Amino acid sequence: MQRYFIEEVYSDQKSVRISGDDFHHIARVMRMNEGDLIWVVYKDAKTASAKITHISDSYVEAEITDLEKQDKELPVHIAIASGLPKGDKLEWIIQKGTELGASEFVPFIAGRSIVKWDDKKAPKKLERWNKIAKEAAEQSHRQVLPPVHSPISFNELIDLSRKFDRKIVAYEEEAKSGEQKNFVKELNFAKQEDKILLVFGPEGGLTSKEASELSAQGFELCGLGPRILRTETAPLYALSAISYHFELMR
Amino acid sequence: MQRYFIEEVYSDQKSVRISGDDFHHIARVMRMNEGDLIWVVYKDAKTASAKITHISDSYVEAEITDLEKQDKELPVHIAIASGLPKGDKLEWIIQKGTELGASEFVPFIAGRSIVKWDDKKAPKKLERWNKIAKEAAEQSHRQVLPPVHSPISFNELIDLSRKFDRKIVAYEEEAKSGEQKNFVKELNFAKQEDKILLVFGPEGGLTSKEASELSAQGFELCGLGPRILRTETAPLYALSAISYHFELMR
Repeated sequence: MQRYFIEEVYSDQKSVRISGDDFHHIARVMRMNEGDLIWVVYKDAKTASAKITHISDSYVEAEITDLEKQDKELPVHIAIASGLPKGDKLEWIIQKGTELGASEFVPFIAGRSIVKWDDKKAPKKLERWNKIAKEAAEQSHRQVLPPVHSPISFNELIDLSRKFDRKIVAYEEEAKSGEQKNFVKELNFAKQEDKILLVFGPEGGLTSKEASELSAQGFELCGLGPRILRTETAPLYALSAISYHFELMR
Repeated sequence: MQRYFIEEVYSDQKSVRISGDDFHHIARVMRMNEGDLIWVVYKDAKTASAKITHISDSYVEAEITDLEKQDKELPVHIAIASGLPKGDKLEWIIQKGTELGASEFVPFIAGRSIVKWDDKKAPKKLERWNKIAKEAAEQSHRQVLPPVHSPISFNELIDLSRKFDRKIVAYEEEAKSGEQKNFVKELNFAKQEDKILLVFGPEGGLTSKEASELSAQGFELCGLGPRILRTETAPLYALSAISYHFELMR
């Protein structure tokens, strides 16, 4: 069943009207008809099944039939902060990270980030990243559409971190020296609805200066197992472990 | 430090000789010199650091200096059996699955597998897949090079499963109905060095007939959290959760 994220907040609406790109998808791409069912995800994560009652030239009307009972979201808020990697790796992180439950993506310019963030191409790139998140959220049946923010500087990342309850750095050097306790310790400390910031380096990792600075700012440096993980794999390990910890093991 | 997987078994050798593709990589690609250090991984997972003593036209000689102390391998043997997916998704599964510690890859022709397994192209494809595993094993500092087997049929998969201690199916329908206990239960039952077979469907998932057959054969049907994961993401979730369970949480 197709899923559509809309801008409204849920407050016992009996019906919903969908226009724009999603209307086009329903009417022209999926070629749905009156009577067909869709999921409608409201801004506050409330999700309803809705039966199409009318398809016009520019909008679809649907009658709310039921609320989705199952909670699809992690009980903690996870921000994935990736040192800007090369090529289309960030797209991969966004797509799979969304399937795995990430709440938001905060790319940042790391010391070893090679790719340049071109202000002229920026809006198009950001739009593409958010489109990828939206498609992944629909396909994985999320009830939240994780935003992808414009890349920030390392100092802006430090500032941003003050809004989080827990701050973790996946640091390769920790893995190499056999550190395996800190990540579990952090997850055990975390409470439901905590905001957790996870920082990952680009290819080549974070510099030791970046790692010290983050540590001085209260970040916990953690190993993610004994094997070295690529920049696009590490966030997926962390999110999977978090799901296993909070959802499967509870 | 570069890592090379060789065909010998470790038995207190004082030196090692490397030829073929790895010789080419050392001498021509990395352009190493006498005195440079490399990791040499023996067939039985013993890994030694070695100092290059001689570079000829066709081989490199190196003197064994030390054994790698840290254990990089999962304490359980994990076989990833993927219903053959489309495009290059299996290559992603092999690359990231190897980073995450998989012991072997067993692709199989699932009911909903669209891609045809062409016997003429088979050897080249298999060679490519094993090359990808080798590069990923080197980069992630593994001590075992996970083999990628030639795709087998569903019935051959059932036969093969008899060699395993535990057998798990990541089944989407279980996730949709909220099943979240079985995977943890299986991992809690597993003992060190157990051989565990994990089966994943292709795009579109396993058919209900395949799932029933696997269940009848003693496979545990498990959900991997409440979100629907793509065919190439599910194995990465499972491997990460297994690492979290056996390596970080022990």
